[in-house]
Formats: sequence, structure tokens, C-alpha cells
Amino acid sequence: MKTRAMDPSRRGLLAGGAALAAAAVGREALAQAPAAAPAKPALPAYVAWKSPEAVIVHTATTIETRRSAFGTSIITPADRLYIRNNLPAPDVSIVANRDAWVVNVEGVRQPRALTVADLKTMGLETVAAVLQCSGNGRGYFASKPSGTKWQVGAAGCVIWSGVPVRNVVAALGGLEGGARFMTGTGGETIPAGIDPRSVMVERSVPLKAMEDALLAWEMNGEPVPHAHGGPLRLVVPGYSGVNNIKYVKRLAFTREESEAAIQKTGYRISPPGQKHQPTEPSVWEMELKSWINGPTSEAGPVKAGLVQVHGVAMGATRALRRIDVSVDGGQTWQEARFVGPDLGRFAWRQFVLPIRLAPGEYLLASRAQDAQFNWQAEATPDNSGGYLNSGWRAHAIPLTVA
Amino acid sequence: MKTRAMDPSRRGLLAGGAALAAAAVGREALAQAPAAAPAKPALPAYVAWKSPEAVIVHTATTIETRRSAFGTSIITPADRLYIRNNLPAPDVSIVANRDAWVVNVEGVRQPRALTVADLKTMGLETVAAVLQCSGNGRGYFASKPSGTKWQVGAAGCVIWSGVPVRNVVAALGGLEGGARFMTGTGGETIPAGIDPRSVMVERSVPLKAMEDALLAWEMNGEPVPHAHGGPLRLVVPGYSGVNNIKYVKRLAFTREESEAAIQKTGYRISPPGQKHQPTEPSVWEMELKSWINGPTSEAGPVKAGLVQVHGVAMGATRALRRIDVSVDGGQTWQEARFVGPDLGRFAWRQFVLPIRLAPGEYLLASRAQDAQFNWQAEATPDNSGGYLNSGWRAHAIPLTVA
Repeated sequence: MKTRAMDPSRRGLLAGGAALAAAAVGREALAQAPAAAPAKPALPAYVAWKSPEAVIVHTATTIETRRSAFGTSIITPADRLYIRNNLPAPDVSIVANRDAWVVNVEGVRQPRALTVADLKTMGLETVAAVLQCSGNGRGYFASKPSGTKWQVGAAGCVIWSGVPVRNVVAALGGLEGGARFMTGTGGETIPAGIDPRSVMVERSVPLKAMEDALLAWEMNGEPVPHAHGGPLRLVVPGYSGVNNIKYVKRLAFTREESEAAIQKTGYRISPPGQKHQPTEPSVWEMELKSWINGPTSEAGPVKAGLVQVHGVAMGATRALRRIDVSVDGGQTWQEARFVGPDLGRFAWRQFVLPIRLAPGEYLLASRAQDAQFNWQAEATPDNSGGYLNSGWRAHAIPLTVA
Repeated sequence: MKTRAMDPSRRGLLAGGAALAAAAVGREALAQAPAAAPAKPALPAYVAWKSPEAVIVHTATTIETRRSAFGTSIITPADRLYIRNNLPAPDVSIVANRDAWVVNVEGVRQPRALTVADLKTMGLETVAAVLQCSGNGRGYFASKPSGTKWQVGAAGCVIWSGVPVRNVVAALGGLEGGARFMTGTGGETIPAGIDPRSVMVERSVPLKAMEDALLAWEMNGEPVPHAHGGPLRLVVPGYSGVNNIKYVKRLAFTREESEAAIQKTGYRISPPGQKHQPTEPSVWEMELKSWINGPTSEAGPVKAGLVQVHGVAMGATRALRRIDVSVDGGQTWQEARFVGPDLGRFAWRQFVLPIRLAPGEYLLASRAQDAQFNWQAEATPDNSGGYLNSGWRAHAIPLTVA
């Protein structure tokens, strides 16, 4: 499939699978593909509608956005957004009647099964938020932790719309006493014959996260795509991807964290090479982070003269105050300018630094500062899962100017 | 093609045309289509990647977003955005090498032909803006002006990224003296044997519009789709669609308005039934406007009880101050709440009013107020072109609650 992007006659080929007949090739991909597009694995059928030239396909369930494909318009369109699934998605038939999807709400005074149609009457909020895989940046850790070697592209900034979880809780009489966690359970099918807890996608986050959480049926102005968790996704702004439960079928307010392996012995910050222990910190809130997206010398040296160095910066749960750019790998810094509208503290911001560069070799880096005057770390300590890498030095990229 | 949305076996069929082989069917459209999707004309091949269930196809060059398909996430994704082309688009091969597209800049001290690659070095700005056809709402005028009977859907809110026109002007030595207009010329192919001025897409706007204008190469985080003017579009925030020149090949700062028919005797506000005169007001800045998008009784009565009445409001060039909603056709009003991030004065805002409705018939309306305390008009005077309809009464929609 390496000539796929170049060959008009192949653009119409579907990757097959009866349930996936709706999948389709990316738009205008032929015309937009750079002449030197590198060979890459094909998009799997269930996301064949993604833009092939904009993504790196690691495996069928791990697909990231190319660093050069983020653009400068703040939001990440669905067809460029990364994919990371812990289990295969439920059958696509679950989005045939989106309003009929049911979520069981527990740990409230009046527990109830609610359909999406019910939820749509209970409130409406719209939040722009960074969605980022816990392992984004894993590829930059020196200890080479196992797992997908994500670079920067297991992240995107999207706009979610749905009902605030606090509205739902209020409508069901409020929380039962003693809840310390909000626990979401995904609707994936569990293979028969194994302990469900060993594979099920069920995550607990601290109860305070409820304040900003949504049960979302819409992403970027469209029903949440099935591949991204539609008909209904639990969105926990500021928390890494795994906590944002796809096809959420149960939302429970619990005294204890989930007993699922993905919670208990997965997604923990552990010393390099060590197994995760339930007592170690869970991968919850994301970190202050930024990186440069352009220009790049991917297609050859950049022309000497004025260039617009640009990238993205995120405060995770806090607003941003400042962003600096370095062209010498962090020896000297210049303050850059945020570009475009501020979509709120959970979104990322684009930034730009116009700078004149003479021919030579450069190392582009950025470091963000949040509203509480915290600076992005220079380096994130290695950890066995390769989680939450947000150090600015690891994210620096070389640039050749001629 | 009326069964298209219902028939999995047809989802993979391309509409044909060698140059359009990159076009593809909309994603997940099968699964998302409501069971009672009405019969409708098929999407033409050049926009076969649009979501068929989200649009109304009037003709091959006039396609609007369904009122119920705007959602509540503020932005309008490319695959739901309306299409209105005055001339057939240039061949899709113009986006094969986007950076090589050339725009001639005239009326500056150092006129120059600039490539998109040149423009990308000259500055970067990102602006969210409503893109709206001058004739949006034409279908609601009592005088039945000729032209497409748009309802609300020849509009969308998108995020543009590109270089500010003022940067380009500064880089070319500033304006020549005496300029009163910014004139953009589209790259459409003019049929042989006719006076180019009779059909060419060339529009002049007052020079002050330059302050906010962009030469944009990106829309919603992706290269501007060919169907929406890529590789390069002149974006004039706050000005109606026709002034936002697609495939812009010439940008001139001129003493006089263009001599093209589309400027001189087109897009003017004229008395009903009368031909446009060059002395009449040109269709430039848009109007303060809002409308309700949901809930609707399209698929049957809405259930009595709490409902979330929602819609969009735009200040055109001014920030919004307030939005009111009526459920009795304007006899009484209640202030609604803006939802989600404010993307700036050129964008629209979503709003919501939670309200308990008993069984009965309702007429939903909204009226917006801008930062200068202007209220949206109750009615827009009929005009022969059917332009700029923004009256709240014409945009009211009935709702049946059972």
C-alpha cells in the first residue's frame, strides 16, 4: 500500500469488512500528499476515513498525528486525531441509533439507566480540551519503555459537547455519601473465558474531576465518531486519554478505585523497569507541556530569512501565561506570541515566533509557563510505563536552514 | 440515490470523474443517518466527502447544512460546511503542490508575485469567523426573490489560519497612495469567447477590511479544502461569503471598485423586483443574527418536560452581549446562556435555554444583542437579491411537544 497516496485509482478502494462499509478514504488526500510521502502502513478499515497523509500508523489500534500535520488552527479535526484503543471497539451498529445508547448511573441517591436522549434534556455544555494519550512522548524516553513509541502526535485539541456530569448527578438526587472517585466503564465487548477485570476499560478519577466532566455526544460539531467513543464518551478535561472512557456504559461514584487491572496495576508512575503497584500514583492529570510543530526540514532545508516558528502549548488544567522559544536547544530563549482565540484552560494554544535565521543548523525548543508561574519541566523522569513525558528538551527538533 | 444513506453496499461507490478520484463517501454516514432520512439529491463528486445526512443539496454548486446538523460545538466541520460557488472550481490539480500557488499583489509600493511558501514566512494569524453566503435566509423572504432558497444553513463557523494581509502589505513597502478598496480575484477558469468581466469572481471591499483580512491556507486544522478555496483563500472576517475569494490569484489595492459584473451589478441591496444598480449598497458586512437549531420535531413530537433550547448567534463584526429566547413566537422573551468558549467577535456563539415545556405547540425564536446594545432586527426588508436576511421572526421554528 505504499503507493496509496500517489495512485488515484486506489483512492476509492475500501479496506473491506461488511460492518465497516461506511468507512471511506480520506478526502483530497491524493492532491494533498507531498511528493516525497514516506511509505507507511495503511489505515485500518474502521478509520479508513482518516487522512492518510496526516498520520503515522503504528498498529491497527495505535495511530498518531504527524508533527507537521497539526497545523495552526488550534483544533484537531477528527480525520487527523490520534487513535489508541485498549480493546477493539464495540460493533459499529451501536451508533445506528445514538439516542438509544444507555449509561447506568450509580452511587447517586436515585440510580438510573439513562439514554442519550434523556441526557440531552438534562443540560448542555461545550468544552475545548486537549485529548492526549498517557504515553504520548514515550518515544523520547532514554530507558525505552515498552509500548507504542509515540512522538508528539498522540494528542489533539478538540471541542466536546454534552451534558455536565454534575447536572446528571443533581438530577438523580445528588451523590450517595462517601464517594471519593468517579468511575467510568467502557462498552467494549469482553472476550469470553477470561476474568473481565483483566482487560476491561474501567477507570477511576478523583471525585473533584466531576466538576468539569461531561458525558459527551458531540466532538468538533459532529456526533462523536465511533472510533473516538461514540455514541457517548466520558470526557474528563485535563486528564490523560485513558480516563476519558469511550462508549461509556456505566458511570459510578465509588468509595474505592476500580478493581480493573487497567486501574490497579496499569497506568501508574513506577521506576524504570518495574511493574506497576496499586500504591503508586495513577496517571490522571496531564502536565504542562509544549512543542514546536514547524517549520521542519522534513522535505529539505528551510530557506534562510524570516521564518515563523510555531507550535502548541497546554496547561493541562491551568491557563497559560507565557511561551518561550529557543532556536539553540535551550541556551537562549525568546518570548513567543500566542496566536488565535483562547479556548479555555483545558485547550491548547498555538504560538508563533517570527525570527530571521541565517544558513545553519538549529535546534528548536519551546517551554511553557502556566498562570501559577510554573515552568514546563526540562525533563520528565523516566518511568516504566513511559507516561506523561512533557520535558521540553526531549521534544526539541532540529532545523536545517540553507 | 435516495436509498444511499440506508444501503451499506453503496457507501463505497465513488461518484466518478478521474480528476475527482480522491473524493470519497462521508464517514460513518450509514450508521449516523436517522431511520427516517428524507430522500435527497446525491452529493456531487467534488464534495462526495461531505456528510450526506448533514446537508441539503440544492444543486451541484449550492449545498447547505441542515438546521439540525449544526450541533453545539461552535465550529462547523468541513464535511458539514455549505458550498456555494459562482463558477465551477479550477481543476483539483491546483492543490497538488499547495505551496507553489501564486498570488499577485498589486497596489503596493513593491508589487510582487508571492507563492504560498513565501506567504508562510511573512506572518501567522488564526481567526475564527462565520462564513455565510450573502443569500442565506433567502428562502424566508415573502417576495420570493430568485436564487437558491437557502434556509439557515448557508453558514458555518470555521477557524482560518494564514498570514494577515497587513503583514504582506508591509513587507511589500506599504500601500500606494489613493487606495480605497481591497480587491481579490478568484482563480476560476473563465470560459472562452465571453467578456471575462461578465462572469469572473472579483470583489472589492472597503480598505478598512484589510485590517482583519487573512490570506488563509488552513481551515479547521487542515489545508483549505479545494472545494472551499484551497490552496489559498482571501478571508475577510465579518463580510459575507462572496467577498472571501477562493483560489485567490490577485490581491489589489485599488482606487475604484472592480468592474466585474459580480461587483458592479451583482450583490447589491435593491428594491424587490428591481435590477441591481452600481450606486446601491454592496453586500459587504453581515448583520447581527441568531437562530434556534434545536430541539426540533422533525422526527416527531418532543417529550414534555425539561428541554434544552439551543442555537447560534453572531455579531458579524461586533462582540455579542446578550441572547434572548422565546417559545411563543416573540410575545415573551427569556435571557439564554452562551455556551462554550468565546472564539472572538467574528465567530458565532452557541447558546442554550433550559426550559420546562408542557404538551402543546410552540414557536421558537431568538434575538441577539451586540456589545453596542443593538438588537437583532425583527425583520429584514425584502430586497431583489434576497440578501442578508437576518430578521428573527422569519427564522422562528415551530415545535410540537407531547
